[in-house]
Amino acid sequence: MNIENLMRKNIRSLRPYEAKEIKCRVKLDANESPYSFPELLEKALSVKTNRYPDPEGLALKKAASRQWKIPPENLLLGNGSDELIYYLILTFGGPVIFPEPTFSMYGIISKAIGVKAVGIKLDKNFDLDTEKFLSAIKKHKPKLIFLSNPNNPTGNCFSTDRIFEIIRATKALVVVDEAYQPFSSKNGFIPLLHEMENLVIMRTLSKIGFAALRVGFLISSADIIKAVNRVRLPFNLNSLSQTVAIEVFKNYRRIMKTVKEICKERDRLYKALEQLPGVMPHPTEANFILFRVGNASRVHRALLKKGVLIRNMTPLIKDALRVTIGNPEENNLFLKALEAVIK
Amino acid sequence: MNIENLMRKNIRSLRPYEAKEIKCRVKLDANESPYSFPELLEKALSVKTNRYPDPEGLALKKAASRQWKIPPENLLLGNGSDELIYYLILTFGGPVIFPEPTFSMYGIISKAIGVKAVGIKLDKNFDLDTEKFLSAIKKHKPKLIFLSNPNNPTGNCFSTDRIFEIIRATKALVVVDEAYQPFSSKNGFIPLLHEMENLVIMRTLSKIGFAALRVGFLISSADIIKAVNRVRLPFNLNSLSQTVAIEVFKNYRRIMKTVKEICKERDRLYKALEQLPGVMPHPTEANFILFRVGNASRVHRALLKKGVLIRNMTPLIKDALRVTIGNPEENNLFLKALEAVIK
Repeated sequence: MNIENLMRKNIRSLRPYEAKEIKCRVKLDANESPYSFPELLEKALSVKTNRYPDPEGLALKKAASRQWKIPPENLLLGNGSDELIYYLILTFGGPVIFPEPTFSMYGIISKAIGVKAVGIKLDKNFDLDTEKFLSAIKKHKPKLIFLSNPNNPTGNCFSTDRIFEIIRATKALVVVDEAYQPFSSKNGFIPLLHEMENLVIMRTLSKIGFAALRVGFLISSADIIKAVNRVRLPFNLNSLSQTVAIEVFKNYRRIMKTVKEICKERDRLYKALEQLPGVMPHPTEANFILFRVGNASRVHRALLKKGVLIRNMTPLIKDALRVTIGNPEENNLFLKALEAVIK
Repeated sequence: MNIENLMRKNIRSLRPYEAKEIKCRVKLDANESPYSFPELLEKALSVKTNRYPDPEGLALKKAASRQWKIPPENLLLGNGSDELIYYLILTFGGPVIFPEPTFSMYGIISKAIGVKAVGIKLDKNFDLDTEKFLSAIKKHKPKLIFLSNPNNPTGNCFSTDRIFEIIRATKALVVVDEAYQPFSSKNGFIPLLHEMENLVIMRTLSKIGFAALRVGFLISSADIIKAVNRVRLPFNLNSLSQTVAIEVFKNYRRIMKTVKEICKERDRLYKALEQLPGVMPHPTEANFILFRVGNASRVHRALLKKGVLIRNMTPLIKDALRVTIGNPEENNLFLKALEAVIK
């Protein structure tokens, strides 16, 4: 039996996203928070294992609604933002446009669904090249544009003016993926929602200490939320994650303190990297730093030998590695290992 | 802004699956187990909230593998079987064929993805009409055939011979959805996996006491699993559900005892329904009973007024209601309420 022949054509050349578990002492590869909040799990013990989750996730929507000051009807819950990307592309189709380099799932999911995906190169500062974007919009007439802001894996925010220009120039939905917004000095786009009818925002709990839960949020006009809800699986968010996510919002201020700690460490790490010969960190507003270094792949391997796992961005970005901000001790271990490796 | 115009054409006529929370005293509408296992949640407290789930779910696959005596490479984990249906159709496309009436998600997800869905009417005993099926296979050349066995919402198993005939007659993948198999007197299809290369099996923890977790399993040849894995989101199953699901397999025998209890209650309830004037229960091997009764919609509403929520199957099946087997007390309350209502 030839499975390849049975597959849809777009799947035949699709390879699964590589997310293997690699053993290491210091794990700084996945943009996770170094701080776990096990005490917030206790409420999950009250879940009735035999009952289906609340299909609407109303209590969680209300909690998020209070935090972000937007009505619950402007919210849709996802099993991580990944699932929301799936739902957006299933609902609106393609072409899908995004900058390059950016979060790889926009392209992978476009391919899985079988819609055209167009990557537009960022300029030399990793900012949006509006000229190229506007001409791609004219040429491809996209249905969706994804902008990760701050951008992963480059770390910087795009110029707000340029994002505005793109939102105004297109009839497509512009999805601003704010996974890393809590680490940024900028406000984020939620307050602008009522002014821009083609604006869609994504948020997640994954980067602020709750990657284990898989909880993402789609934030947009009630009409867009209703449209995407048509393709949503009725029980897409399990009861345990819903319950713990409500606790996250109850403890939001405390969690945001750890986010501030991470930002402080990021700034310290950035300065330390700047001091290392041949190491060039890129300005960042996220919980990671992209840096260039000669022989990046060799450095990456050598770090892993010392028990420090970071992300190798080559060949996507030449000579580049990405390190997630850990706790002070982890960051020091990373710095020490890097120093030894590049000597 | 006209959202309708922006949607893909297949989405414009799609309505979301209705899964609203309705307040009631006795909840017998969703084929949940009446038995909760809160003590199995405790292991979840050891989860590190900040770390992404194991993308491969290896420990859980190993636990399921031991239980079902199939190697882990024949397993794929899903955020409920619903997600696995999505992945199957994304990977192999349509046309998709299934009996009618059956579990509604096969048709809904086909529509969401935009592939042709063909429903083939069951015969008057709610068994497969092989003649109709074989001619539909010839005509439509399907890529996927879904057979819920035992079938929801009718409750019966299809004749094994007829399922075999369909599997042999087609090059499509035949997906036997065994969500309700634990309640059946038949063995299920797992032992036949190595004999039939186009056989795919789905299992779930949702009906045996763990609907809250959203854990489904795809069971098939390693090649088919690898193919479907291409469209799987890397972190589709959160850490809490993975952790608790492993505990489920550690306590499988104890859980199966409650399944036996439910089957006993089902047989008692079936006999009691047979005794009621104008009530005709349909033979079942699942944790629910489909029964015909005059004025089904009125009966359904009247039961709800008495605090008993069951599922109204009209107009899909004329004059039919579906009741999930509860614990003895719940079943008695249901019976008493029904008796009063139809008097």
